[in-house]
Amino acid sequence: MKLTAIAVALLALVGMGPAHAQTAEISRNGSRPSAMGSAQYFTGSVIVEPLFRANEHMHASGGLVTFAPGARSAWHSHPAGQILIVTSGTGWVQEKGGEKRAVRPGDVVWTPPGVMHWHGATATTSMSHIAITNMRDGKNVEWMQKVSDEEYGK
Amino acid sequence: MKLTAIAVALLALVGMGPAHAQTAEISRNGSRPSAMGSAQYFTGSVIVEPLFRANEHMHASGGLVTFAPGARSAWHSHPAGQILIVTSGTGWVQEKGGEKRAVRPGDVVWTPPGVMHWHGATATTSMSHIAITNMRDGKNVEWMQKVSDEEYGK
Repeated sequence: MKLTAIAVALLALVGMGPAHAQTAEISRNGSRPSAMGSAQYFTGSVIVEPLFRANEHMHASGGLVTFAPGARSAWHSHPAGQILIVTSGTGWVQEKGGEKRAVRPGDVVWTPPGVMHWHGATATTSMSHIAITNMRDGKNVEWMQKVSDEEYGK
Repeated sequence: MKLTAIAVALLALVGMGPAHAQTAEISRNGSRPSAMGSAQYFTGSVIVEPLFRANEHMHASGGLVTFAPGARSAWHSHPAGQILIVTSGTGWVQEKGGEKRAVRPGDVVWTPPGVMHWHGATATTSMSHIAITNMRDGKNVEWMQKVSDEEYGK
């Protein structure tokens, strides 16, 4: 027990093992499996590529999300807000009570905490965005009902 | 004074004016002027395109940074850490005491608080990355000396 403590202290001194968190970490492209967006929360084909996780210093997680034409999230809100950086294609975003708005590469969307909204592709074009989603108390999204074809088509 | 207060309350009720912060905001591509990286902190041609600012919910700012071949940041650290998402080209990152490492599109680099490092292009290729830099007490970077040609070429 005592020897282990000494070993840990020595490793920390030479910058190995327990000091790992103090080293820049490269997460390589290809090492983070993509997932399909769950049919419970998304309509159509949605691919989610994780980019980074929240940690004690980074109060947000990041992912690259690609929506096939016609695909979109369900209505939802974020307890601590979200940034979207559109990276390709053309998509739509809409918040409750507002108009559907087109977004294109280089557009950046800030959705404040608690604002009910959805985002996705247009009916005819795909859209990809990086999503940076803030955490509050370990939670980053509140899901609501799906976006009906009527709402989406309006 | 009283009338103004009533007007503000009414505007808030109907979702205008003072309630603006409760609405999703789209910052359009083309509306955020780019800047050249200051010669004090960068070597060579570096273009910084702001993406988003920190706010009361978002404890990080975001920008797209493009380094011409041979261009790089000075040595620096981040008081609350930084995420880099490489978007194009091939670049180098190095932390104090470590080897220079190549980074390519889709690679994601997490640099913990206080780790002295630099990032930039390789000697022959440009590199662009999105940088998401956490704030602590209104500060997100601590600049140190520039990366000499000898250090860069190693």
